Amino acid sequence: MTRSGPGEPAAAPEDSTLASRRSFLKTGLLGGAAVAGGLASGRALAAGDPAITEIQDWNRYPGEGVDARPYGTPSEFEGNVVRRSVSWLTADPISSVNFTPLHELEGIITPNGLCFERHHAGITIIEPTEHRLMINGLVDRQLVFTMADLKRFPRVNHAYFLECAANSGMEWRGSQLNGVQFTHGMVHCVVYTGVRLKDLLDEAGIKTTGTWLLAEGADASAMTRSIPMEKAMDDCIVAFAMNGEALRPEQGYPLRLVVPGWEGNMWIKWLRRLEIGDKPWHQREETSKYTDLLADGVARRFTWVMEVKSVITNPSPQAPITHGRGRTVLSGLAWSGNGTIKRVDVSIDGGRNWHTARIDGPSLPRALHRFYYEFDWDGSELFLQSRAVDELGFVQPTKDELRTARGENSIYHNNGIQTWHVGPDGAVENVEIS
Amino acid sequence: MTRSGPGEPAAAPEDSTLASRRSFLKTGLLGGAAVAGGLASGRALAAGDPAITEIQDWNRYPGEGVDARPYGTPSEFEGNVVRRSVSWLTADPISSVNFTPLHELEGIITPNGLCFERHHAGITIIEPTEHRLMINGLVDRQLVFTMADLKRFPRVNHAYFLECAANSGMEWRGSQLNGVQFTHGMVHCVVYTGVRLKDLLDEAGIKTTGTWLLAEGADASAMTRSIPMEKAMDDCIVAFAMNGEALRPEQGYPLRLVVPGWEGNMWIKWLRRLEIGDKPWHQREETSKYTDLLADGVARRFTWVMEVKSVITNPSPQAPITHGRGRTVLSGLAWSGNGTIKRVDVSIDGGRNWHTARIDGPSLPRALHRFYYEFDWDGSELFLQSRAVDELGFVQPTKDELRTARGENSIYHNNGIQTWHVGPDGAVENVEIS
Repeated sequence: MTRSGPGEPAAAPEDSTLASRRSFLKTGLLGGAAVAGGLASGRALAAGDPAITEIQDWNRYPGEGVDARPYGTPSEFEGNVVRRSVSWLTADPISSVNFTPLHELEGIITPNGLCFERHHAGITIIEPTEHRLMINGLVDRQLVFTMADLKRFPRVNHAYFLECAANSGMEWRGSQLNGVQFTHGMVHCVVYTGVRLKDLLDEAGIKTTGTWLLAEGADASAMTRSIPMEKAMDDCIVAFAMNGEALRPEQGYPLRLVVPGWEGNMWIKWLRRLEIGDKPWHQREETSKYTDLLADGVARRFTWVMEVKSVITNPSPQAPITHGRGRTVLSGLAWSGNGTIKRVDVSIDGGRNWHTARIDGPSLPRALHRFYYEFDWDGSELFLQSRAVDELGFVQPTKDELRTARGENSIYHNNGIQTWHVGPDGAVENVEIS
Repeated sequence: MTRSGPGEPAAAPEDSTLASRRSFLKTGLLGGAAVAGGLASGRALAAGDPAITEIQDWNRYPGEGVDARPYGTPSEFEGNVVRRSVSWLTADPISSVNFTPLHELEGIITPNGLCFERHHAGITIIEPTEHRLMINGLVDRQLVFTMADLKRFPRVNHAYFLECAANSGMEWRGSQLNGVQFTHGMVHCVVYTGVRLKDLLDEAGIKTTGTWLLAEGADASAMTRSIPMEKAMDDCIVAFAMNGEALRPEQGYPLRLVVPGWEGNMWIKWLRRLEIGDKPWHQREETSKYTDLLADGVARRFTWVMEVKSVITNPSPQAPITHGRGRTVLSGLAWSGNGTIKRVDVSIDGGRNWHTARIDGPSLPRALHRFYYEFDWDGSELFLQSRAVDELGFVQPTKDELRTARGENSIYHNNGIQTWHVGPDGAVENVEIS
């Protein structure tokens, strides 16, 4: 396993237990999990039960008033629900990544404070009144916009997932990281508000020779990516808000490009410039990075779409089963850069038998989908897997299928089926079965 | 204007400019606002433009790394985007209210840190492992649940608005408060995750005589409300998460009752007990409070549904027009306890002419809806109004229509049409026209 340059996760975090790369043979995998008629949770209440007789302090004494926290914060008991970085992963935290605690979250919306971060030169702090967005290159009118100018264009609102192309990147070479936060935590989903990129480009007037767009960030790395005009004019947004409020600094405040369904690196943060050209620029982040190196040494470029993917978030290594046998809620996330998720299948026996999961909550194109599968656990070991199918009919592949097609050199675009092993004690581990 | 008891907003906040109760005659209201062919925002860029030549510090120097904020916070430049309380409104901040800054928000999701608060004995701090939910009364099995027990039931996710019955309560007696945060800021909308109340009640087994439910909070006020069994079994949720993460302490951590479309006071926070009975309990909060006192002294009780309502959030007194004439984005929120919003009409001339607004983003039942109306402002004075229609065909009434039906004694359930006056300088004021 190679340590790669700044920015590409390459191996297990020191602050997480290293999975032992266990490999399981599919043959004779399980006895017969599930289907105990497990009685529920909740216990019968008798007279004199402490639940009746004990009065807690919080029933006795009043708490803080409405002026205590003008901007609210999570409960002190949720201090473990945080983004986590991995110190050895990159040379410096200013060109690094941290991960969303997917195993602690519900539904499809990621709270702004828990959206994973990826910077190339640290969190840029921009005074919004001083910020400008420039459009130049092959246009009729070169233009510059203040934030106030932008807010005079019609606004649109969309929930979209944002996934780093390197999410699950370490899994190419086998099960490495013991936690869904680290294997899959470079994805989040928020509702963006902004203006259509098309409206700004129309205002500038794109020349007929203008077929590509270069988006540039105002941070010290001056992050730049080439985007084909067809995508720019289709559904891209120049966003200034996420989940109702202004973008967070680490997510590009005051302005970021939203490129629905495409790899996160293209969603330029701290957006300052849009140049129109007639060919791609082949910047660093689309040549030496964010291309897919195949087994024969050839690299695939412009693999922008984040293909259909899913993962079980609970149970998972950071969220073992602690309640013993009986009723168990399995929960997970699915998404596709191609649109909505049509179906998620779940297996608890390593892919021998599949069950259709229940998708709950809104099903929005290019947004996270939440799925559930409820079952009675009989206490035997389980091999949990999920497999998503998107609206174009694409089916999430196995990791081995991916390796057959693309080798093991790549870091990016690993949408393979994840397997979690559940032991009789409820502990969960990242494993592969073949 | 009467100062009322703890909890009922009664007049203008001292930290906001008092509207001068201006009344405008509808006749001869306007010249001819709108329809200047205003050219857009954005200016032409010339060689040597500072936007090209000036390099800001944020382009030069790297910022903080990914380990800086495990749980993120808003930009330092957004310090004004906070909940605000009104010190003179209630006797003590522990039995009081603060308001969501609607004029600063986008889309339909309210960030957790900005959801308005209403406590009756301060913010209760509950250790989740010690918390219990009891079901007693007319049931086959009295039960008690830990938080872990509850998480073994199937989960559901829904975006719902929560509106305090007293929202806009001060407007019964004329335009009082100069800011949409204070006139309409007791509403928020988040995605809740939890278990169906029905599933818990089925587990306990409701006796055929059990037709009412009493929900009780674990705070020092032991807040209690009666809920008819039909609603309890229909769509109520026992929720433990909002917008993907655990409930915030001020919103009932670790457990709150969600009563979709009904007045916020019934959404018992810090939920500790559900008692099943055969008639309503007539607690304080459903007799002396949260009933609607009519002109003749009779009070309407059990007016639970929050009826169809809308408000223009921008422009509004706290968010005046600062860009002068030309392209202007009008934005607002609409909601109904009866389901989805079918249409929002907007007037800029005090109700003479109405335009169908554009509803953008998901249209979900009993959730906030975001609407827009884009127009060219010619710089003349405007009287902005919005009027929502819900899926049952209910049309938002004028304030005068409400007063004709219910007098001016009430504090609750004011869903009347709001009017904002925009002066030639872009300043906005809360007014009434008749």
